[in-house]
Amino acid sequence: MSELLPVAVLGARGRMGAEAVAAVREAPDLELVAALGSSDPLDSLVAAGARVVVDLTVPEATYDNVVFAVRHRMHAVVGTTGWTPERLGKLGTVLAGAPATGVLIAPNFALGSVLATAFAATAARYFESVEIIELHHPDKIDAPSGTAVRTAQLIATAREAAGVPAAPDATRDAPDGARGAGIDGVPVHSVRLRGLTAHQEVLFGSPGEQLSLRHDSFDRASFMPGVLLGIRSVAQHPGLTVGLDGYLDLQAGTSS
Amino acid sequence: MSELLPVAVLGARGRMGAEAVAAVREAPDLELVAALGSSDPLDSLVAAGARVVVDLTVPEATYDNVVFAVRHRMHAVVGTTGWTPERLGKLGTVLAGAPATGVLIAPNFALGSVLATAFAATAARYFESVEIIELHHPDKIDAPSGTAVRTAQLIATAREAAGVPAAPDATRDAPDGARGAGIDGVPVHSVRLRGLTAHQEVLFGSPGEQLSLRHDSFDRASFMPGVLLGIRSVAQHPGLTVGLDGYLDLQAGTSS
Amino acid sequence: MSELLPVAVLGARGRMGAEAVAAVREAPDLELVAALGSSDPLDSLVAAGARVVVDLTVPEATYDNVVFAVRHRMHAVVGTTGWTPERLGKLGTVLAGAPATGVLIAPNFALGSVLATAFAATAARYFESVEIIELHHPDKIDAPSGTAVRTAQLIATAREAAGVPAAPDATRDAPDGARGAGIDGVPVHSVRLRGLTAHQEVLFGSPGEQLSLRHDSFDRASFMPGVLLGIRSVAQHPGLTVGLDGYLDLQAGTSS
Amino acid sequence: MSELLPVAVLGARGRMGAEAVAAVREAPDLELVAALGSSDPLDSLVAAGARVVVDLTVPEATYDNVVFAVRHRMHAVVGTTGWTPERLGKLGTVLAGAPATGVLIAPNFALGSVLATAFAATAARYFESVEIIELHHPDKIDAPSGTAVRTAQLIATAREAAGVPAAPDATRDAPDGARGAGIDGVPVHSVRLRGLTAHQEVLFGSPGEQLSLRHDSFDRASFMPGVLLGIRSVAQHPGLTVGLDGYLDLQAGTSS
Repeated sequence: MSELLPVAVLGARGRMGAEAVAAVREAPDLELVAALGSSDPLDSLVAAGARVVVDLTVPEATYDNVVFAVRHRMHAVVGTTGWTPERLGKLGTVLAGAPATGVLIAPNFALGSVLATAFAATAARYFESVEIIELHHPDKIDAPSGTAVRTAQLIATAREAAGVPAAPDATRDAPDGARGAGIDGVPVHSVRLRGLTAHQEVLFGSPGEQLSLRHDSFDRASFMPGVLLGIRSVAQHPGLTVGLDGYLDLQAGTSS
Repeated sequence: MSELLPVAVLGARGRMGAEAVAAVREAPDLELVAALGSSDPLDSLVAAGARVVVDLTVPEATYDNVVFAVRHRMHAVVGTTGWTPERLGKLGTVLAGAPATGVLIAPNFALGSVLATAFAATAARYFESVEIIELHHPDKIDAPSGTAVRTAQLIATAREAAGVPAAPDATRDAPDGARGAGIDGVPVHSVRLRGLTAHQEVLFGSPGEQLSLRHDSFDRASFMPGVLLGIRSVAQHPGLTVGLDGYLDLQAGTSS
Repeated sequence: MSELLPVAVLGARGRMGAEAVAAVREAPDLELVAALGSSDPLDSLVAAGARVVVDLTVPEATYDNVVFAVRHRMHAVVGTTGWTPERLGKLGTVLAGAPATGVLIAPNFALGSVLATAFAATAARYFESVEIIELHHPDKIDAPSGTAVRTAQLIATAREAAGVPAAPDATRDAPDGARGAGIDGVPVHSVRLRGLTAHQEVLFGSPGEQLSLRHDSFDRASFMPGVLLGIRSVAQHPGLTVGLDGYLDLQAGTSS
Repeated sequence: MSELLPVAVLGARGRMGAEAVAAVREAPDLELVAALGSSDPLDSLVAAGARVVVDLTVPEATYDNVVFAVRHRMHAVVGTTGWTPERLGKLGTVLAGAPATGVLIAPNFALGSVLATAFAATAARYFESVEIIELHHPDKIDAPSGTAVRTAQLIATAREAAGVPAAPDATRDAPDGARGAGIDGVPVHSVRLRGLTAHQEVLFGSPGEQLSLRHDSFDRASFMPGVLLGIRSVAQHPGLTVGLDGYLDLQAGTSS
């Protein structure tokens, strides 16, 4: 009979943390051995025997949490933001001293969103035209969304690397905003609509055909399958991985 | 056995005209009695016994063509642009002398597009949020499309008449264009993509729900059902009608 | 200064009832004067001075509740199911004795869904082809959904009334189910997908064009705007109205 | 200055062949050196100096054409159907004697469709639920489409390999066809609508999220970018490749 994997959740009283606690509890192959709030001492992780630490805390705390985990040879799965290049560099040094330990830092745990972004980067070089439409609830204060900006940048990089010329556009006469925001040359359109949560569509066009990649995020539950995948896979990926796509098998195996 | 309706097409050598000639020829209840080019004399319409004249010519010619038809008690179905308020007024005077004669001037004969616009105007008052996305081939020189602008104006008018407040939008930080062009307060986003023809989507949102009205125009054939509907209905609508929606039964009869 | 409209909610402890209580409380023009559970006596409605009674109870209770309301000259807005033709007939008799009192019985309060169904019935006669795709969470036990069946029936009735022939379909070779369930001749396809709530798309096609009417219901909140519209409008609709569409202005006012 | 690549098209008078002739003529890096009809002798390919032969003929002719090309050390790009496992095996033997020569046999040259299928196979293992909707013009005689069947099979294979359990489905009560055709356990829904050409949507669902991969094929022009990619790449892929995806770089290079 296979053993359960002992998991600890940090930031367990936040909204994401509480979801993660529930998801770990429900998973038949995982055992929740600790669920710490922001002021709880980290030492209890050692006593609890955690093998994987899930950090869903705050930017101020996440670096110290992860370093503590690595020093105690626990793997870490991190959804907290605030990882500057400098912090990533310092973490790399710490990890060099623990070559069997893995850390996953993921800005986005929604598998569908991660896959859609990866697919968009792959498809980018094969089409004349590409535009992004992102749709969110109207209480969002920034436009375009961070995911849309990152997707546009990846697409622009892939097109440039493949020598794809600028998308055709004969527009001569447009009032401000009709053609969207140009992010690295990719038009991005931001829709704000009551009733929606977080949605994104990448449209690719070539003569006679269109490819549309759409992701709909309806609620926070969408992050949990990605968190669980991270927990289960982190031990097989020693060192630092940034982005959940690093854990996904993105190469379709079969010819069509 | 019912008689065939004698129809004449003006502008028969243009692209739309040629489609109309073919459509009339194929219709089992219509008879094509004349197909005139731009320099052919109108007198032949009388000899041919046309009852309905379809004008698909050019802005310079359409007014004289329609006045000729009305003076000879022929109904007219007009797809040509260039009808200024002044011309419409003068035509009204001519029509006053021919009270049984009907003229339909329609900027758009695609039934699906006309219905989508009418539905959007109806739905407008019932939702918190509304935005328009129009998508066209990249050789189009204007953005937003004329249909999108007209749809936005109808929506804005309907919302104002019903006292609907401005759509919620917490956006504070957006680069130029991310939130689209504001047409009478309705955000309109214009996508230009190789492979597309002419497409429009109106998105309505309220707490917990979204209503999407989408029309796809794949080719010019989409105008013919509307032209035929105009030809068959114009005799039942004496006087001047602007817009094909004036000939449609837009009141759903049945409770749901 | 305008007076508040006194409203009572029956079934206030159910999920829909609790939402309605909250919605009435938040509405600046309404006053919640009673919120009764299933075992509370109806007499308190009179003492409370309710002008509109919202019934969100159970099929066993709704008839008696509504008759009580009508006899006390209170208007009623009813979301409970279980209204057989026989019950509707008896209620009609009771209403005949209260000619100024209105009752709205609505199987569906989601404005977007009601509008989409009405639009589908209107568009039905103008297209060669029509099919319905409904998409729901995988815990739903019936397929197609009730809304899809009703939509298909309305479409079929409208097409028959307008003499539209059967939609073209050259399919000769299809495994069981590929072409959907035929509801009154309209193919209906039922998708069951984890993550979804309740969604429906009606697709109309003619040469060169497609019209798509889509409604997404993301959560129960989508019913509240319709309930509030019913509460505010019922006094202007004496007698019995079945279906929220009876309260909507479905005639677009403006030519396009 | 770089040399032009000499290309021959077989089946040049068919519809696909004529498109290919035009596409090769317009490509600045290719030179059309032969355009043969079905009864033209193959010997002229040698005299013309073709380096790549594009076969868009008929199932009866394609095998001999390709073997002729390989024996003369010309690469071949094949869009003709009729390649049985037996023929593929025999071709493999011929190719063993020409180790530097490449042959691409592709059932589908639409890049968007090939990418969508590959992405669907990749995403398959990461979601609880998956269904396919394919939409075509109503003159199509088979349902589901061949592409939909192949996509379903690839998805089913990927899910099985990853140990994903059957998609949840509580449906107890469904008339024939509502839940689609089960292809290797994946529900496939076939819509037939006047106005459409060839479209496919793969829907993936997990708690709180949906991923939709949609491809629209509007006309035959959509095959030409894939044919050109095949012509330009075949020399770098000696041996036999089945499926255009074998020439695509499907591994997104960048973390998200």
